[in-house]
Amino acid sequence: VSVRLVGGADLKRLVARVGAAEFMRQLIAELAAAYARWDEFEKMARPATHVPGGVIELMPISDATRYAFKYVNGHPRNPEQGYATVVAIGMLTDATNGYPLLVSEMTVLTALRTAGTSALAARHLARRPSRTMALIGTGAQAEFQALAFQVECGVTTVRAYDTDPAALAKFARHGRTLGLGVVVCGSVAEAVTGADIITTATAAKARARILTDALVAPGVHINGIGGDCPGKTELEAAILSRAKVVVEFTPQSLIEGEVQQTGAAAIHAELHELVRGLKPGRERADEVTVFDSVGFALEDYAALMLVQRLATQYGIGQATDLIPDLADPKDLWSALH
Amino acid sequence: VSVRLVGGADLKRLVARVGAAEFMRQLIAELAAAYARWDEFEKMARPATHVPGGVIELMPISDATRYAFKYVNGHPRNPEQGYATVVAIGMLTDATNGYPLLVSEMTVLTALRTAGTSALAARHLARRPSRTMALIGTGAQAEFQALAFQVECGVTTVRAYDTDPAALAKFARHGRTLGLGVVVCGSVAEAVTGADIITTATAAKARARILTDALVAPGVHINGIGGDCPGKTELEAAILSRAKVVVEFTPQSLIEGEVQQTGAAAIHAELHELVRGLKPGRERADEVTVFDSVGFALEDYAALMLVQRLATQYGIGQATDLIPDLADPKDLWSALH
Repeated sequence: VSVRLVGGADLKRLVARVGAAEFMRQLIAELAAAYARWDEFEKMARPATHVPGGVIELMPISDATRYAFKYVNGHPRNPEQGYATVVAIGMLTDATNGYPLLVSEMTVLTALRTAGTSALAARHLARRPSRTMALIGTGAQAEFQALAFQVECGVTTVRAYDTDPAALAKFARHGRTLGLGVVVCGSVAEAVTGADIITTATAAKARARILTDALVAPGVHINGIGGDCPGKTELEAAILSRAKVVVEFTPQSLIEGEVQQTGAAAIHAELHELVRGLKPGRERADEVTVFDSVGFALEDYAALMLVQRLATQYGIGQATDLIPDLADPKDLWSALH
Repeated sequence: VSVRLVGGADLKRLVARVGAAEFMRQLIAELAAAYARWDEFEKMARPATHVPGGVIELMPISDATRYAFKYVNGHPRNPEQGYATVVAIGMLTDATNGYPLLVSEMTVLTALRTAGTSALAARHLARRPSRTMALIGTGAQAEFQALAFQVECGVTTVRAYDTDPAALAKFARHGRTLGLGVVVCGSVAEAVTGADIITTATAAKARARILTDALVAPGVHINGIGGDCPGKTELEAAILSRAKVVVEFTPQSLIEGEVQQTGAAAIHAELHELVRGLKPGRERADEVTVFDSVGFALEDYAALMLVQRLATQYGIGQATDLIPDLADPKDLWSALH
């Protein structure tokens, strides 16, 4: 009963072994498979604890055979001390006996699964072809989003804008190593010009209007990933009113997503309804679509399932004795002697 | 930003380094200190997920500087497959920035903290001296309870009874290595004869009456640790009616504890009220007292704090890269390259 530990170096090795593009492809497939089984999961709100300077959440979910949860924080002022705003650790366990299987680094994995989920939504919502993506906000999520849209939609050019020139330069450097054309832009308006897809991934801390309705051309798909907690939004409400809006899990999105500006009436569908064919995705070339992403525990489940499968396949990770191996379950004392 | 991992072998080494009795002494002190700061903690109900064959819970708690949580399952039929009914993993994090500090084995640590909490309650509720403890149920918790009462109350003799002769023999063997006199008894009635303290630690799965009112002599302290989930109790309700009953956290105890039989009216105090001197513990030599223990997240917090302190002091545990070390918090992509 050894528990596998996948640390940061292990995940890096695993992604390198499979290849970043292939890892993302498999992750999107895993996400699609999980969303297709939506009804099989026991879903719950994230139990949040408010601590000085931030919030700490536990995000659990389970089906008949696996239970997954993620520990994740959000401390907006962390960067001032040189710390990341968000870090995470995930765990996958055997639901049938409660025994943990995997403890994993999940800071990077969360960025990967967020991008994979964006790509899955775009599969149903973006027009074909979508070669050009505007990327508003080139922070920690940027390259992951670029990779996911390159893999899923065949994006070849990213028109990037950020208020922080250093973050913009960082993305341009990494984006080009992905084989993408990166156009560094001086404004949101410049970035969205001619874009098929607009991804907003800013760290706007309040009700912001990073993207105004006037800038959204017919037929564009908006992938909004930066509005992800109460009081934090990126899109002008008018966009939501005229667009086909898709969310992950309505009760959570109404609290944390862009739709906290509009209420449930603005929601066209939940992502699983598109994946399962219960509701249409894009129907017209000229309609505006929005994926209002806040992140959901099911996505962590899918990411942990993929890591566990690949780590087993390639022998990556370390065996730990986090769970005792007892010859006699009633003799726990023997574990100390 | 390395996260310390304390596995089973690490905890064993740590307890051996300090000595089991001294570890328990320090743990009781840590528990007392935590309960004395009761008002400083953000407490919440345990988010439970029902899975096939059992339940999985996350137990979070925090104060201004530390956040702790435990992953713990309960699968009653696990022993049939050779697995423990309950296993656990704990995590301690820095609440001020959300960064994890410690991931720890917590199956054994939970048994230690449960016993330590029982001893802390007995400090306020058991008569002095208490030399003889009856132990009804000699499963996984038994030796931990015996150690805690030896350390805290000076118990020298344990009168043990279990329906499973193998479990009874196991306890007798281990108990004697602790320097305790162990009297193997043939019935509950025999075990409680002359006992100052009665500890019930059975795995009774339904409303059981392991201990009936007629068997409880005046002046006895009852340490009830086996009634710990809805529908699972060990004590005849009449005992609760005439005894001074102390619980950990009323909202949780009303659902999971012995007091689910009686309601809040039977509760004299919460443990922190005794620790803080807000309500009296034992007042008369002939009164019957009950600690109705179900386990509370604060106890896991105290146990994890102790492990983190001792592990740091003795250099025990392993540094992991579960959290990325980023030169630039906006350059998460670099963690993969």
